Amino acid sequence: MHLGVTCLVISIVCSAALEQGRSSWTGKLLVVPMDGSHWTGVKAVVEEMGRRGHTVIVVIPEISMRLGPGKHYITKTFPITYGQDLINQMIGEHVHELTEPEQFMRNAFNYMASTTESLLKSRELIEFLREQNFDAVLTDPALPMGAILAYNLSVPAVYMLRGLLCEAAATGSPDPPSYIPRFFTQYSNRMSFSQRVLNVFVSMLEPLICKFVYWPFEELTYNFLQRDMSLIEILSTGAVWLMRYDFSLEFPKPLMPIMQLIGGINYGIRNPLKKEVEEFVKGSGEHGIVVFSLGSLVSSMPKEKAAIFFKAFSMIPQRVLWRYTGEIPDDVPENVKLMKWLPQNDLLGHPKAKAFITHGGTHGIYEGICHGVPMVMLPLFGDQGDNVHRVATRGVGVVLSIHDITAETLVDALNTVINDSSYKQRMEKLSAIHNDRPMQPLDLAVYWTEFVMRHKGADHLRPAAHDLNWLQYHSLDVIGFLLFIVLIITLATFKCCALCWRRCCRKSQKRKED
Amino acid sequence: MHLGVTCLVISIVCSAALEQGRSSWTGKLLVVPMDGSHWTGVKAVVEEMGRRGHTVIVVIPEISMRLGPGKHYITKTFPITYGQDLINQMIGEHVHELTEPEQFMRNAFNYMASTTESLLKSRELIEFLREQNFDAVLTDPALPMGAILAYNLSVPAVYMLRGLLCEAAATGSPDPPSYIPRFFTQYSNRMSFSQRVLNVFVSMLEPLICKFVYWPFEELTYNFLQRDMSLIEILSTGAVWLMRYDFSLEFPKPLMPIMQLIGGINYGIRNPLKKEVEEFVKGSGEHGIVVFSLGSLVSSMPKEKAAIFFKAFSMIPQRVLWRYTGEIPDDVPENVKLMKWLPQNDLLGHPKAKAFITHGGTHGIYEGICHGVPMVMLPLFGDQGDNVHRVATRGVGVVLSIHDITAETLVDALNTVINDSSYKQRMEKLSAIHNDRPMQPLDLAVYWTEFVMRHKGADHLRPAAHDLNWLQYHSLDVIGFLLFIVLIITLATFKCCALCWRRCCRKSQKRKED
Repeated sequence: MHLGVTCLVISIVCSAALEQGRSSWTGKLLVVPMDGSHWTGVKAVVEEMGRRGHTVIVVIPEISMRLGPGKHYITKTFPITYGQDLINQMIGEHVHELTEPEQFMRNAFNYMASTTESLLKSRELIEFLREQNFDAVLTDPALPMGAILAYNLSVPAVYMLRGLLCEAAATGSPDPPSYIPRFFTQYSNRMSFSQRVLNVFVSMLEPLICKFVYWPFEELTYNFLQRDMSLIEILSTGAVWLMRYDFSLEFPKPLMPIMQLIGGINYGIRNPLKKEVEEFVKGSGEHGIVVFSLGSLVSSMPKEKAAIFFKAFSMIPQRVLWRYTGEIPDDVPENVKLMKWLPQNDLLGHPKAKAFITHGGTHGIYEGICHGVPMVMLPLFGDQGDNVHRVATRGVGVVLSIHDITAETLVDALNTVINDSSYKQRMEKLSAIHNDRPMQPLDLAVYWTEFVMRHKGADHLRPAAHDLNWLQYHSLDVIGFLLFIVLIITLATFKCCALCWRRCCRKSQKRKED
Repeated sequence: MHLGVTCLVISIVCSAALEQGRSSWTGKLLVVPMDGSHWTGVKAVVEEMGRRGHTVIVVIPEISMRLGPGKHYITKTFPITYGQDLINQMIGEHVHELTEPEQFMRNAFNYMASTTESLLKSRELIEFLREQNFDAVLTDPALPMGAILAYNLSVPAVYMLRGLLCEAAATGSPDPPSYIPRFFTQYSNRMSFSQRVLNVFVSMLEPLICKFVYWPFEELTYNFLQRDMSLIEILSTGAVWLMRYDFSLEFPKPLMPIMQLIGGINYGIRNPLKKEVEEFVKGSGEHGIVVFSLGSLVSSMPKEKAAIFFKAFSMIPQRVLWRYTGEIPDDVPENVKLMKWLPQNDLLGHPKAKAFITHGGTHGIYEGICHGVPMVMLPLFGDQGDNVHRVATRGVGVVLSIHDITAETLVDALNTVINDSSYKQRMEKLSAIHNDRPMQPLDLAVYWTEFVMRHKGADHLRPAAHDLNWLQYHSLDVIGFLLFIVLIITLATFKCCALCWRRCCRKSQKRKED
C-alpha cells in the first residue's frame, strides 16, 4: 500500500469518529493569518473549523499574495498603505533576488510592520471584532498583529507557527544550547566543542536579536495598547502553540504542555491529478517522475540558471514536472513539463514519484517525508538551510547550492537519491515514523483550537515560569544566597580556627617565656 | 449529561475508529509489572493489548498482592525467597501501621530488592523469554527489574509510572527547581524565597537520594549484566515513558517527547453496580452518597479510629459506602454500608456521588476528578501528601490528618465539600478539562506501546542530552572557556592601557624634566 494513501485513510476515519464523539457545540473564531506559505496550514484549520459549524472570520489586508476568501469562512479586509509593488518585490520574480536574504528580509519586515500598523489603526474593524465576542483567535505569531489584537480583545489566542526567535522566552520552554542547535547555525544535536561555543554564544545573543527584529512592533504595540508591555509578554499569553514540526525532522528537545506538534498538517488535503497531468506521469514508465518546485516565492529563474536545469533534465530518464512561470525556451526537453501551478502534494503522493527537487521549506519537506520521496535540496534563505541540513543528516536527501550548481552535479545528485536504494529505504523508515501518530495533525490542530474555545483558554497548562524573572527562573538568587551562607560558615570556621590557633600559640609562647 | 458517561462514550468511539484505521499487524509483548496499585493501569493496557491480538506474557512472582492471570494474557511465574508474611506486612492490617512510613518503606524496598534478585536469578525463565523475541517490554521502572531485563534481552522498553526520583536524569527532561516543586515538599509551583531555597536544596540532594534508594539494585544489575552500568543509564534507554498524570492535577512543566501523559488511565473501565449496591445508592435520595476508601493497602483501622468515622457518618444525611474488612461493631449506623471490596470507580461515576473520602493515591484522585466528585483527603504516606496538596490548592477538596481527626472535623469537612457549591463548581470545571483530551489515556498508552513494537523503539525521540556529561549538558565548560577568553581580553586590554599610560607619563615627565 502506498504511504500517502495510508495517511489519508487514517485521517478520514479518525476525523469522523472524533466528530461523532464530541458535542455539537459551536463557537466563534477570529483568524489573523500571515501571508505566503504560512497561510497553508492555517487555511486547512480554518476551512475545517468552518465545516464543523463554527463561525470563522478571517481578517486580511486589501492586497495580498495568497490570502483570500474560502468556502467555510467569512473574510474582512482592512486598508493598507502599501501597493502591489511591495508584494511583487516580496514574491521575487527571479531566484537570484531571493538569494540576497538581507534585501528580502528588509522587504518582508517593512511589509509586516506596515500591515500591522494598518490593522491596528483600523479602529472601526476592531470595534466590529470586539462586538463579535470571539471564543478564540487563531494567528501566526511570526506576524504578531494577531497576538496583539487578541490581547486587546481579551480573547485567548491559539498560535500556529514553524518556530520563533523568541520562542523559548515566550513559551517558558527550556532550550539547553548544549544539544539544541540554534536557528541558522546548521548544526546538528551532536556538536563539537567549538560548535557548542558558537551555539551558546548565539543563544546568548538571541534575546537581543529578538528585541532588534521585533523593534518596530514594540512601538506599534505601545501606541495601540497604551501600555508599557513587551512583545514577549504579549506572546507569552498565548494559550496553545501549534508547532508546525515533528521529530521525524527536528532534533528531540523539551516541550511545554502548551506546545502541540502538527508537523505535516498540509498533506491531508489530496485531490486527484488532472487527466493531462496524470497521463504525463503515467507515461514515465518504470523510471517515474521528478517533482521540482522552489516554493511559492520563486516562480522562475534567470535564463542561464534555467538552462542548467534543462540540460540536466535532458540527461535523465525520468520525467520532470516543474513549477515555472518564466520565459519558455524553444528547446525544452520532451521529458519536462512546465506548469504555472504544481499540485505538489498530489504529485509526491503518486506512486511514480522518484525524487523531489525542493528549496527546503517545511511544507514541502514534510510532504516529501510523508510520501517517502528522497530529495535534492537547494536552500535559498530563512530556515531552509537548517531544514535541508536535518534532512541530509538523516540520509534521505542531498544538498546542492543554487549558486554553483551545474548540470553534472544535479544529475549526479538525482541519480544518487533515485538509484542508491539506501536513500529510499531510509526515507521509507522515516516516512513510517512520521505518518505513525496517534492523531493526524489537522485533527490535532482543530482539537486544540476547539479546546481553547470551549474552556476560554488553557490556563491549567501555563507554566509558573512566566511569573519569575531571569535570576529567579535560573535560581541564581537562591544559589547566591546558598553561596553566601557557605561563605559565612567558611569564614566563621576560619576565624574560629585562627582564634584557637593564636591562643594555642600564645600559650605555648608564654610557656616558653616562662 | 453526567461527566463519567461522557468520557466512556468518547473512549469507545475513538478506540473503534483507531483500530479500524490501523493495520492488523500483531506482535509479542513482555510485561514485567509492579505489584499493588501500580498494577491497575498496566493491567488495563495488558488486557487491551491481548484483546487486539498481540501475544502478551506477564512475568509475576509466585506470591503477590494483586498480580494474577487475566483473560487476554499468559502469566509466567518465578520462584521467590520470601513468604506470604512479608506481603501481609506490606498490606498493613491497620491504618496506624501505614502512618509509620519508614517501616513501610523499609518493607517495600526489601520486598522489591528480593523480587528483583529472584527474577534475575531465574535463568531458565530468562532463557525462555529470550527465545520469544519480544517486540517490546512494558514495565514500571519504580521496580527496575523489568528495565534491567529489557536491557539484557535487547528489547525496547515502554515504562508506565507515576513518577520517579531519578526521572529527570533518566529522561533528560529539564526540571527547574524555581517553579517545579520537588516530591514530598508539598510546595506549589509558586514558591516563596525560603521555599525555593529548600526546593533547590532538595533538588541538589536528589541524585544522592536516588543513588541511595536504588543502591541494592545497582549491585543486582552489576551481578546480572556483568557490566559496570548505573541504573540511571539503564533507565535512560527506555523508549517511551507513559506518565500516569496530567495537568489537571500536576503543575505544568517541560516534558521530553518520549513522555506521554496517561493520567486517569483506569477510569475507562466501568461496570454496572450490583443490584443490592445500586438499591442502597438509589435509596440515598436527594442527599446522595459518600464513597470512602483508604486504598488497597489499608483495609481496616483500629477500633477507636473507626469509631470516630462511625460517629461522624451517623451525623450526616448522606449514605456512606466504606471499604472495610475489620471487626464490625454492633452499632453501625443505618446509613453506612461496609464492603470488603468497593467498586470505587463505578460508585464515583454514579450521579448520586456527593463526596469521596480518600487517602490521596493518584488512581483514586483521578477517578474523583474524572467524575467531578469533591474530596475529603486523609494522606497516609508516599506521594499522597503532594497529591492532596495539589487537589486542595485547586479548591476541590479538603485535607484532614488521620492522626488528629475527630467526628466534628470530619463532618465539617464533608459538609463543606458537599454543601458549599463552589467546591462542586470548581470540580466540574477541573473535570471538564481533565476529560477533554484528544485521545483517551488507555488508547494513548496502547498506541505508544504498539508504536514501540512496530518500529523496534523510538530512537527519533531520544534526546542527545544523554550523550553529554553534567558539565557539558549545562554548558559549564563552554561558559568557563568564554569567561577565560573574556579574562584574557580584559587582562590584555588592561596591560595595554597600563603600558600606554606609563609611556605617556614618562613622556610628560621627560618634558617636565626638559
